[in-house]
Amino acid sequence: MSMSPEQIEAFLETEFPQVRETYGDIHVEQAGDMKSVVRIPFSDNHLRPGGTISGPTMMMLTDLAFYVAILGVIGTAHLAVTTNLNINFLRKPGHADLIAEAEILKLGKRLAVGQVTIRSEGETGPVAHATLTYSIPEGIARQS
Amino acid sequence: MSMSPEQIEAFLETEFPQVRETYGDIHVEQAGDMKSVVRIPFSDNHLRPGGTISGPTMMMLTDLAFYVAILGVIGTAHLAVTTNLNINFLRKPGHADLIAEAEILKLGKRLAVGQVTIRSEGETGPVAHATLTYSIPEGIARQS
Amino acid sequence: MSMSPEQIEAFLETEFPQVRETYGDIHVEQAGDMKSVVRIPFSDNHLRPGGTISGPTMMMLTDLAFYVAILGVIGTAHLAVTTNLNINFLRKPGHADLIAEAEILKLGKRLAVGQVTIRSEGETGPVAHATLTYSIPEGIARQS
Amino acid sequence: MSMSPEQIEAFLETEFPQVRETYGDIHVEQAGDMKSVVRIPFSDNHLRPGGTISGPTMMMLTDLAFYVAILGVIGTAHLAVTTNLNINFLRKPGHADLIAEAEILKLGKRLAVGQVTIRSEGETGPVAHATLTYSIPEGIARQS
Repeated sequence: MSMSPEQIEAFLETEFPQVRETYGDIHVEQAGDMKSVVRIPFSDNHLRPGGTISGPTMMMLTDLAFYVAILGVIGTAHLAVTTNLNINFLRKPGHADLIAEAEILKLGKRLAVGQVTIRSEGETGPVAHATLTYSIPEGIARQS
Repeated sequence: MSMSPEQIEAFLETEFPQVRETYGDIHVEQAGDMKSVVRIPFSDNHLRPGGTISGPTMMMLTDLAFYVAILGVIGTAHLAVTTNLNINFLRKPGHADLIAEAEILKLGKRLAVGQVTIRSEGETGPVAHATLTYSIPEGIARQS
Repeated sequence: MSMSPEQIEAFLETEFPQVRETYGDIHVEQAGDMKSVVRIPFSDNHLRPGGTISGPTMMMLTDLAFYVAILGVIGTAHLAVTTNLNINFLRKPGHADLIAEAEILKLGKRLAVGQVTIRSEGETGPVAHATLTYSIPEGIARQS
Repeated sequence: MSMSPEQIEAFLETEFPQVRETYGDIHVEQAGDMKSVVRIPFSDNHLRPGGTISGPTMMMLTDLAFYVAILGVIGTAHLAVTTNLNINFLRKPGHADLIAEAEILKLGKRLAVGQVTIRSEGETGPVAHATLTYSIPEGIARQS
């Protein structure tokens, strides 16, 4: 059963309150149709020396955006777990919001594979690109 | 110029105070000889629903352990940056310290490539395994 | 200096004759604008038991398509070398041509990073998706 | 049911004759205990301009060595398929045999994850390092 962006945002707040505590607000702008768009507003807390947004913040956002894309299709798959994440850091992000666009390339019975592109608002070239694999629980797979 | 584990721990505290704020204490147990061992004591803050230590915590630890291995060899390469991180999540970690062992497989003029294995204290099978690439600044590369 | 698809195809035939010997004809359909399209006609030689096109054939095609995209932009960079290739195999390819679409996500002074999607002609879902990093020789980098 | 190195070599010759046709002799030197060692004798056919052994040859060897490690544990899992392969090319191989050492890091009910290190005989630093994931067929998984 698919979920709307609002439902997903509420679900994340309830189930993963530490995400907000650690990274601040995160907005689910789109979900569904095998895709998602997730925004993380700019905050000084994410900065590393040199003014770069930290790698862990971008990795968290990557993982979250793909999870949101899965939730948008198969619903509260809160047992779906990341099995692989491969990220290339491409450019130094600006002092701006980060916007992650996720796309499911294959949603199989056991695995979901996809890609996430992270952009810094107002810039053209992506700041990071990742591919991910999630393991889908048996029960939910049967529904899909 | 290489650094001792103590020097690296002090350097990280000064340069990356937000790591401690976000993830708590992190101990550099070994550094040098193209390797490192970094420990992150168990804390409830790292937990996800279901009692699993969060993926972002493990990705941060992976990245940090490899950075420590590089610092152990070429010193305060605080401009060295991650260009690629590929992580496989293998087993659910226990409620125990995480111990990351990093190994540099190649330290070239431009790139450092290596692997990191994360174990949960007291368990045999690794909980995660990653490969990483760091870009090495020109100036520092010339010294190595 | 950029190259046309015809120039690239001739260059590959001269410099890498063993590719044709091993894999048969390979057609460079597009090159330039940070992208490429490369087609490998269906041949029984690529088949594995079970009727699947072999993984090594798809990995070769992935690598070649991204190399063609680089050639299309910076010309005969015949010293550019693959440093990382990460491929996800998504679906069993049909008995049909394979078409690889490559896209350079970042062309830096030292590294080119991009992605390749492989499709089986006549099918919608991709059969494989890869990300790659190439190391760019110093001399050529200065020209770009 | 596990297989010996001799049984695996015979199995590969029967099921994958095109591997020998394309790459020449391949020797399974060890298999079992979650590991394998596979050797590919040096041949001019693998060379690229510049005298480097081709990337596709090393990717094929990586994939094969990990498959052999799986066969050594769960037997003729000839339906096990690669889902992910991530390879870092580290050094230019010499004009010498390539030796791949594979290690299964996790053999689960659905997925096998592991790593492969490729060395050029007579040299110390590895020429390539890879991580792989194989999908394990349901039936065989139940036996393991």
